[in-house]
Amino acid sequence: MTPSRAAAEPAWADLAGRTLACCADLAACTEVPGQITRTFLCAPVHDAHARLDTWAAALGLQTREDAAGNWRATRRSAHPAARTLVVGSHLDTVPNAGPYDGVLGVVLGLALMDALQGTPLPYHVELVGFSEEEGVRFGVPFIGSRALIGTADELMGVTDAGGRTVAQAIADYGLDVNTLAEAELKEEVLGYLEMHIEQGPVLEAEGRSLGLVEAIAGQSRLNLTFTGKANHAGTTPMGLRRDALTGASAFVLAAETLARNTPGLVATVGSLTALPGASNVIPGAVHLTLDIRHARDEVRLGALDQLLTRAGQIAEERGLTLTHELRMEEHATPMDPALTALLGEAMSAEGHAATPMVSGAGHDAMLVGQVWPAAMLFLRSPGGLSHHPDEAVLEEDVEAALRMGTRFLHLLAEREEAR
Amino acid sequence: MTPSRAAAEPAWADLAGRTLACCADLAACTEVPGQITRTFLCAPVHDAHARLDTWAAALGLQTREDAAGNWRATRRSAHPAARTLVVGSHLDTVPNAGPYDGVLGVVLGLALMDALQGTPLPYHVELVGFSEEEGVRFGVPFIGSRALIGTADELMGVTDAGGRTVAQAIADYGLDVNTLAEAELKEEVLGYLEMHIEQGPVLEAEGRSLGLVEAIAGQSRLNLTFTGKANHAGTTPMGLRRDALTGASAFVLAAETLARNTPGLVATVGSLTALPGASNVIPGAVHLTLDIRHARDEVRLGALDQLLTRAGQIAEERGLTLTHELRMEEHATPMDPALTALLGEAMSAEGHAATPMVSGAGHDAMLVGQVWPAAMLFLRSPGGLSHHPDEAVLEEDVEAALRMGTRFLHLLAEREEAR
Repeated sequence: MTPSRAAAEPAWADLAGRTLACCADLAACTEVPGQITRTFLCAPVHDAHARLDTWAAALGLQTREDAAGNWRATRRSAHPAARTLVVGSHLDTVPNAGPYDGVLGVVLGLALMDALQGTPLPYHVELVGFSEEEGVRFGVPFIGSRALIGTADELMGVTDAGGRTVAQAIADYGLDVNTLAEAELKEEVLGYLEMHIEQGPVLEAEGRSLGLVEAIAGQSRLNLTFTGKANHAGTTPMGLRRDALTGASAFVLAAETLARNTPGLVATVGSLTALPGASNVIPGAVHLTLDIRHARDEVRLGALDQLLTRAGQIAEERGLTLTHELRMEEHATPMDPALTALLGEAMSAEGHAATPMVSGAGHDAMLVGQVWPAAMLFLRSPGGLSHHPDEAVLEEDVEAALRMGTRFLHLLAEREEAR
Repeated sequence: MTPSRAAAEPAWADLAGRTLACCADLAACTEVPGQITRTFLCAPVHDAHARLDTWAAALGLQTREDAAGNWRATRRSAHPAARTLVVGSHLDTVPNAGPYDGVLGVVLGLALMDALQGTPLPYHVELVGFSEEEGVRFGVPFIGSRALIGTADELMGVTDAGGRTVAQAIADYGLDVNTLAEAELKEEVLGYLEMHIEQGPVLEAEGRSLGLVEAIAGQSRLNLTFTGKANHAGTTPMGLRRDALTGASAFVLAAETLARNTPGLVATVGSLTALPGASNVIPGAVHLTLDIRHARDEVRLGALDQLLTRAGQIAEERGLTLTHELRMEEHATPMDPALTALLGEAMSAEGHAATPMVSGAGHDAMLVGQVWPAAMLFLRSPGGLSHHPDEAVLEEDVEAALRMGTRFLHLLAEREEAR
């Protein structure tokens, strides 16, 4: 990276401040006054895109909405053999969200274009504000990123709680679903960069601003039911009980113990219902969920096997029956080694430890990474908090991301020129 | 006991069959067609009392309803120094009940009077069908037995879900609450006998028809809350979690282990709620109940202390906070040793093991036992089932109770004559 590439050293603190101000500005585009709630192609998305258009236009970018409702801004390179770098994240939110989940990555992309104003680059840049990542309205996530890679067709008939399809939602917003194919990015893509808040406590616990994502964890989600026999809490001696809750409790602890003893594994029982649920009745049945994630599919699937075996043993030891049902299974998505190494080089050059970490949450990079080399940067989440109105980001971390991101784009320019 | 006391050996099998038929007959007196549901002084109680009156009248007993709605039937002795034996159980039911809980004890009392027709006894017999034991309508149980011992006054202002008081319910039924004092039994009472289904699995597991109750367990009921921090199931490593459910699970198992290792102790977590309860969110709080019972108060209170200490340790080890609230505390009620010994003597004479057992459930004998010597007999509960439409009793066990009960009343007669 050669600092001389930049026309002038950007005023980083000012740019970081403007980045946060833009996130706060977009937070006003909400379906629910007093909250930040912005689901797929709800009316306030018009306003959000208009605000982004204004900033992008000031940077000389061309903008458009594609037929999947993605916000797109393009910076063209004069280089004759230019490929395209995609920089993106999502603009939709969970209900009663914070201002940074997704949005920050889009705004940071714009801020990087600001930092590089006047600096020629040997690649085009396609900024994307994905229309849908959270899966709130239709139960299936990633409508926006699927459209970018050309796999959203199959989602068009999926219905929301009111029975309207994705295609109808697109029409309701005022877009033409018949042009969906034009949402697909058909240029030669050199890579995809996503910047996102961590949504977890790791960076804060390690005192780091930025994190280098090496993989997005795969996950399995299951429903399990232990069934015993409901009985009177006073008249049934301990030796004659078939208590579904004590069995379920042994399973909850077995899942915790296995995850604690398996590096990188997380296992969570998030929902547990004991029936009939009266204080003086021994629980006859317990329904619970298991969520288990790891960066390597073989580790996750091996752990899941172990836990189901253990659950069966617990049931047998306690005279219970066990049933389980797989509700979701997603493979792990490794980031692209070469692009991630370049991102790590930029981090190191800016004084950040490039220790690789795993994203336990899903991101658009999972989808985009299926077709193009993807790299992902995390920004520290104060308190590990996300999906909450108090979700935050530190201005110093935003500034660090801008400095480092700019250096990354320069390194990428050098690499592209050397091709 | 001298068999010659009986005018003629009763036809036991026939009497047992008629006892069960009478229970089935009373089951038709219900608030909810198709179910057995008969709460305190609901209209069908008129019909239930009328049916009991008919059978009692055929046995030459005087009957009445007292002002607490108890059904009373009296057999007077010609003996100049006669004291009174009270025989009773309750006639109200839980919603969607079985036909025997409570009712069987009242009908068995009548059947014993049938078996002893023509046999002079040196004591009066007061049969009582208590109007209320289950606590369904007013949340407080034992309205009937409290009235019999003269402590029901304080309950008259308690309201049901619709805001009507116990006193109003008495008036609604057509009784005069101003005569409540007359419900109190002011005679010299030699003892109280309650026959009741076990409502648990012990007798069945031991292959016994009848059980000799030595005490009614005391019980403590508590609400506990473990509070940690709700967080993302994917992004929060195991080492940075404050999972309220894994902590609660450790407590559930600690309660089970202590109870298993403490003879006679039962401990139950019947209700457990994990919040927010989403499959991909680490539970931030768990509310649970603890129900703990033992025949000796010091054992129960010692165990409760141990469990609360353990709960506090679990919370501390896991970065959780713990709160608890005592919702109910009832002392253990030992049965009267002399009367219970006499009941055991009758059991042994009839070939039944008189192994003492503890009632884990509450009964009218808890209240009556505060003022008079009380003894309690359990009849085997098939499947340990009660508070359920499939609640059952074996005809052979009813016959055994009648033979043994008759022998007990003879032994009691000998004891009274020897005073």
